[in-house]
Amino acid sequence: MTTDTLPVASVTTKANIYFDGKCVSHDLRTADGQRKSVGVVFPAELTFGTAAPERMECVGGACEYRLEEGGAWLRCEPGQSFSIAGDSRFNIRVAEVFHYICHYG
Amino acid sequence: MTTDTLPVASVTTKANIYFDGKCVSHDLRTADGQRKSVGVVFPAELTFGTAAPERMECVGGACEYRLEEGGAWLRCEPGQSFSIAGDSRFNIRVAEVFHYICHYG
Repeated sequence: MTTDTLPVASVTTKANIYFDGKCVSHDLRTADGQRKSVGVVFPAELTFGTAAPERMECVGGACEYRLEEGGAWLRCEPGQSFSIAGDSRFNIRVAEVFHYICHYG
Repeated sequence: MTTDTLPVASVTTKANIYFDGKCVSHDLRTADGQRKSVGVVFPAELTFGTAAPERMECVGGACEYRLEEGGAWLRCEPGQSFSIAGDSRFNIRVAEVFHYICHYG
């Protein structure tokens, strides 16, 4: 099931813009203080780094990702998610726009 | 003063993408049921249409706008806003990325 609406307490109004606009996100806080973000990745192949562990949940479009350089590309579609360890990197490639929620920690 | 953080109740997780990605926004609901959105406009000159009246509040970057074709271009910077009538159109041009809150109604 896709998370169409997310209950939150506040949004940081200024967007995060990465990779020259290929990724745009807005930071969120939930009522119990958790940090999340919602965003999009436009068609591109990108390498992201994590600080905290992350779970990327697809809410529209699709992406392919791989957690290790040279590893298999796996597909993530609406209702699916994938988890990334903290302090690491992952590759993502997008052919159609990928809409996501990023859950931290 | 710039609205850095906006109290809301929920966010629609899938982004709105307009003009081939030149504008990206996320819809929000406040606790009392008001509809708002947060978004960015990348460098471009665009014409937007309104259904409900809107107030665009700049929270980062800047834009120039005009409410009438052939009218004067006016600048909107962080902490400033401009209002647009319902069921109308306005032009916006952006040289640096424009971050905004859109207040409806």
